[in-house]
Amino acid sequence: MIQLHCFGESGNSYKAALTLELAGLEWEPVFVDFFNGETRGPEFRRLNPMGEVPVMVEGDLVLSQSGVIQDYISSKTGKFGGRSAAERREILRWVFWDNNKMSSQAGPLRFMMNFLPPEKRLEPVIAWLAGRFRAALEVLEGEVGRRDWLVGAQPTIADLACCGYLFYTEPFHFDRADWPGIDAWLSRIADLPGWTPPYDLMPGHPSDRA
Amino acid sequence: MIQLHCFGESGNSYKAALTLELAGLEWEPVFVDFFNGETRGPEFRRLNPMGEVPVMVEGDLVLSQSGVIQDYISSKTGKFGGRSAAERREILRWVFWDNNKMSSQAGPLRFMMNFLPPEKRLEPVIAWLAGRFRAALEVLEGEVGRRDWLVGAQPTIADLACCGYLFYTEPFHFDRADWPGIDAWLSRIADLPGWTPPYDLMPGHPSDRA
Repeated sequence: MIQLHCFGESGNSYKAALTLELAGLEWEPVFVDFFNGETRGPEFRRLNPMGEVPVMVEGDLVLSQSGVIQDYISSKTGKFGGRSAAERREILRWVFWDNNKMSSQAGPLRFMMNFLPPEKRLEPVIAWLAGRFRAALEVLEGEVGRRDWLVGAQPTIADLACCGYLFYTEPFHFDRADWPGIDAWLSRIADLPGWTPPYDLMPGHPSDRA
Repeated sequence: MIQLHCFGESGNSYKAALTLELAGLEWEPVFVDFFNGETRGPEFRRLNPMGEVPVMVEGDLVLSQSGVIQDYISSKTGKFGGRSAAERREILRWVFWDNNKMSSQAGPLRFMMNFLPPEKRLEPVIAWLAGRFRAALEVLEGEVGRRDWLVGAQPTIADLACCGYLFYTEPFHFDRADWPGIDAWLSRIADLPGWTPPYDLMPGHPSDRA
């Protein structure tokens, strides 16, 4: 059985978990105690020297980076992939864009605003990340505001990457009401059979540390 | 002939330009006047709605995101790619890691410290980015400090992605002398036939704005 090392608060983990779930694969989450430093410890670093979740393990195969895991699941199942070389390149483009321009802002911004102790919440950094996050949301709104899915006529891992952080409801300068195209697109994703919100799909929740 | 829309200061462009050059393809750069706002204008947005360089054009084919361009060049030429499915996944993993953890810090950090007007140089953001950049450099040092290339026995696009910003000499909290493994790995890359430093490969240089 596929295991996914992850925790509920991690939007990057959610991209992999959601792809596994929607593709209909048998999988189980393995809780990573990020907030108590597990990803910085030697045991986890042996699993992934990058010190990051998600990590997918299937027998001898160990994969990290959500984009690689999503690509693997799509290739293995024939689901959420492209129907031509051009579509596959376009999908990869959006997954890279998400990793570079969207989640790179949304992830640290949400963590800093919600999960770090007050002394580590740096207001100038929050403002700077929020500005860059907004620019990324504008690009996304311009695309999903005028078609159903990012690439082709079906949902793909491009959609399942770019939505990764946007289903979380903690405050991080994102309100669906401000982005009608993104809002409708997220609703289309949430209507896919098997869709499950982040904290129901992976162990670990902010209330665990309350 | 392949055209690469780019400018000299862009490390993401350099990854694509260097891959084109080392793969021995015929290509020509098309200068993008980023510092006068070209990437925010309607003409460029028609070429790339993401508003980013590099953009590669080959006949009707338009590609953006350096990782996609690198993957395309590697597939087209059979160079700098993996020799098995496992190596290809591992290469993709490092290219994603670069885009998400390395260049996402190094790029904005270097721009803010060198190319933005003083009032936009936000010291708390610089310090925060420098800390995250350092963590990424530690991961990279741990890998290239104990083997010649990131994946397999040959240089791949994984190396040509992760090195993208590290050949620039403007100050951005990176000194090769502090990182002996990275320093030796960069020298191995610079010894590859055809290697050319960023400002000699692409038009546009900080002195243009002096």
